[in-house]
Amino acid sequence: MAGTKGAETSGRLVEAMLELIQARGYSGTGLNTVVEQAGAPKGSLYFHFPQGKEALGERAVDLAAARFRSLLADAELESAGPDEVIHRVIDVLAGLLEESDFQLGCPVSVVTLEMGAQSERLRTACGNAFESWISPVAEYLVGLGRSEEAARTLATAVVSAVEGAMIVSRAQRSVEPLRRTAQVLAGLLDQRAPVTEAV
Amino acid sequence: MAGTKGAETSGRLVEAMLELIQARGYSGTGLNTVVEQAGAPKGSLYFHFPQGKEALGERAVDLAAARFRSLLADAELESAGPDEVIHRVIDVLAGLLEESDFQLGCPVSVVTLEMGAQSERLRTACGNAFESWISPVAEYLVGLGRSEEAARTLATAVVSAVEGAMIVSRAQRSVEPLRRTAQVLAGLLDQRAPVTEAV
Repeated sequence: MAGTKGAETSGRLVEAMLELIQARGYSGTGLNTVVEQAGAPKGSLYFHFPQGKEALGERAVDLAAARFRSLLADAELESAGPDEVIHRVIDVLAGLLEESDFQLGCPVSVVTLEMGAQSERLRTACGNAFESWISPVAEYLVGLGRSEEAARTLATAVVSAVEGAMIVSRAQRSVEPLRRTAQVLAGLLDQRAPVTEAV
Repeated sequence: MAGTKGAETSGRLVEAMLELIQARGYSGTGLNTVVEQAGAPKGSLYFHFPQGKEALGERAVDLAAARFRSLLADAELESAGPDEVIHRVIDVLAGLLEESDFQLGCPVSVVTLEMGAQSERLRTACGNAFESWISPVAEYLVGLGRSEEAARTLATAVVSAVEGAMIVSRAQRSVEPLRRTAQVLAGLLDQRAPVTEAV
């Protein structure tokens, strides 16, 4: 029972950390605010995360990575083709931006940019998060007939473009950049690859 | 003479702020460190920037925007076609990442993600910075025969993809994501547009 409750508190702390990072980044997120937002008892943070903010940040990045992975996997399962996958994913991300009044961004990007030079642990978590999105997209494209090499290249560009478009959309308080980027990516992925690639 | 020296100090402060934001973001950059890195006298910060950190951050974002604009303009002037423009720009960005040992990132992205929800002034500066890159790319593509609408869409996707790829490359300590993204973008831009778009 204590174990369950402990896991629950720990989960709430990670969840709160993730939300705060999405809204204001890593450096601007104070641990007192995390504890407060999680509704967790004081002291619980260092009980669950004796290594402090870095360990909590790493868990938040891992959680964000897992969520986007499952968003990708669901979209693949539910879609008839790659252009539909793109539009489904972008619909969810655009909804996230609009519902939060453009207050939430990608936690992996911001942790990379703030902490990449200062924490090897956080940088590695972010590098792995991106890899965990690029790999399944590449596999999906291989399943559609692309070569390993072409699939990897396209998947890298797709993940990069979606990341970047989220940021431009947030800066411009408009989902238009995200929608326009989706249009280009859908066109890219929809091409019948093995044949047209050689042209 | 005092005016020149003042402008020089002010410029050094903006330059130092920009470098620090690139390495560790906005929230993690202390004003004392800015003054120290600029080699500026204590007190000069509030003399030149009485509105404090936000005003200095805005100037740093504007400076970064202007630099990338002129990188784009130079690449367009020196290139025979859009694929060459992309490769020239990516060469410079990849060089920046490698020479800094992946310690420097795009200041506009990180300020958007950290401060977009907290400072309307900084968010606006970042939105304008992105716009100041998307617009000339779109104009360039119109000059090559694309429709206004198609050019705007492509330019948005290109700027987004480059932004995103810079972040993925930094997280993975490798220019590979940037190079792969460049390959896809060069292919996209190289298509003879008005004809193939209708296919």
